[in-house]
Amino acid sequence: MARSVEIICIGTELLIGKTLNTNAHWLAKRITSLGSKVARITVVEDDVDEIASSVKEAMRRKTHFIITVGGLGPTFDDKTLEGLAKALECKLEINNEALNMVEEKYRKYMEEGRMEKVELTPPRVKMARLPQGAKPLFNPVGTAPGVVMEHEGATIVALPGVPSEMKAIFEEAVLPLLKEAAGDVTFFETSIEATGVMESEIAPLIDEAMHDNPYVYVKSHPKGSERVPRIEFHLSTTAEDSSVARNRVSKALVQLSELIQGKGGKIKPVKTEDDIVEKPK
Amino acid sequence: MARSVEIICIGTELLIGKTLNTNAHWLAKRITSLGSKVARITVVEDDVDEIASSVKEAMRRKTHFIITVGGLGPTFDDKTLEGLAKALECKLEINNEALNMVEEKYRKYMEEGRMEKVELTPPRVKMARLPQGAKPLFNPVGTAPGVVMEHEGATIVALPGVPSEMKAIFEEAVLPLLKEAAGDVTFFETSIEATGVMESEIAPLIDEAMHDNPYVYVKSHPKGSERVPRIEFHLSTTAEDSSVARNRVSKALVQLSELIQGKGGKIKPVKTEDDIVEKPK
Repeated sequence: MARSVEIICIGTELLIGKTLNTNAHWLAKRITSLGSKVARITVVEDDVDEIASSVKEAMRRKTHFIITVGGLGPTFDDKTLEGLAKALECKLEINNEALNMVEEKYRKYMEEGRMEKVELTPPRVKMARLPQGAKPLFNPVGTAPGVVMEHEGATIVALPGVPSEMKAIFEEAVLPLLKEAAGDVTFFETSIEATGVMESEIAPLIDEAMHDNPYVYVKSHPKGSERVPRIEFHLSTTAEDSSVARNRVSKALVQLSELIQGKGGKIKPVKTEDDIVEKPK
Repeated sequence: MARSVEIICIGTELLIGKTLNTNAHWLAKRITSLGSKVARITVVEDDVDEIASSVKEAMRRKTHFIITVGGLGPTFDDKTLEGLAKALECKLEINNEALNMVEEKYRKYMEEGRMEKVELTPPRVKMARLPQGAKPLFNPVGTAPGVVMEHEGATIVALPGVPSEMKAIFEEAVLPLLKEAAGDVTFFETSIEATGVMESEIAPLIDEAMHDNPYVYVKSHPKGSERVPRIEFHLSTTAEDSSVARNRVSKALVQLSELIQGKGGKIKPVKTEDDIVEKPK
């Protein structure tokens, strides 16, 4: 049984359409490939109450992991740890391990000649004020540590919003947690593309293929233009064993292909790749 | 006072990291530019209960508009209207206006030689089964109509997930609703970039600028590499009058620039543009 993960992205820039949420996309893909299930993605603004309520809602849904992204930096609008403390009804306190990490970073910046002396000003100390019981996660790329804590059976991880920092801490500290939780569960996916049939025609075919292959999720994605319609069929499954996963998907793929060809459709395999529905400007 | 909007994106492809959510980004930018405020973005899977609970949660937060994206097509995994009906405790029923729209589309496809005769099969009729009291919104690009309905003071709009269809229905039918709701409220934003200062140094400067300019939201975004740090400052406001909005932001911009230069930072204006944190592969 795949473990459930909720991703909570924190940042007003995402809600005003300034920033495209590539972080959620990267995390969703990565977490799925590791055998866990992303159950929900929520985006909230830089507001303590909004952060706290979104975390509490995820806790109520009994998700196994909550991963927040953004809001760990030194400025006033970095409010994630305050929001987490409010959600979990605990206090923020200076974590010595985190403070050492932050201090080490500024020492390094000083050695590189970027500052004259290491001063632990309030904005810098802020990055080391964690919810009680939380542990810092070393940030190999930037300054603010990530955070991990356990609460009522859920593991809560807070990652920075800068993509390179988010990814580095994920790979170093979160990946092992998810791998351990997933055990041998793996995700397998593939796609085929059909032309010469309409989406409304193939609806019953998908029903049939999914009925006969109960563990395989089949989803159709209309592509191409109205004049030259193409439909991508994406088949995926999660299983305890990678060869089981692959065999399940293959069996469903063969059946679905035959059904589509029976309706006069033409099939070609497509490389499974990210579906960038349109190029960002 | 800006009206609040919640965006609910429906699609398992978003949660497995197959599709980058450019729809939410486009909508957030567009809605903000029209003077409304995007309060939250939620992504849920193709599941009736998940759709229903996310809509009910948004209703409880007393948002003025709920815009769902995706799940309006003919296949089994298009479950948005069923989820809406469940959330609002009403039935789905065939809407004649919607059925006419769907039938017209297939008549057109037949005339184009894409099908032999117009058959209103169950998957096609499904696109015209709307929650009671809902109205269809004409889809100039694809087949499935959009949907609009009022419920307990909120306006709920359901848009298709294919970007070109989503945008076309938004511009045609949703934009006028948002414009009317916003009145003369407009959004104004600008950015500057600073080098030669660290984010932790400028935290108190942002506090000062925001204290003196209470209607302007200032957010810092670390850019560049660790070796050559750059910080973008994004300033934005929403006001009843566009010149008021512009003046507010300009005043804050001047003050913040002076503060940063006082700390030895160098300022340059940057074109406000979408923040594509990394190129999707």
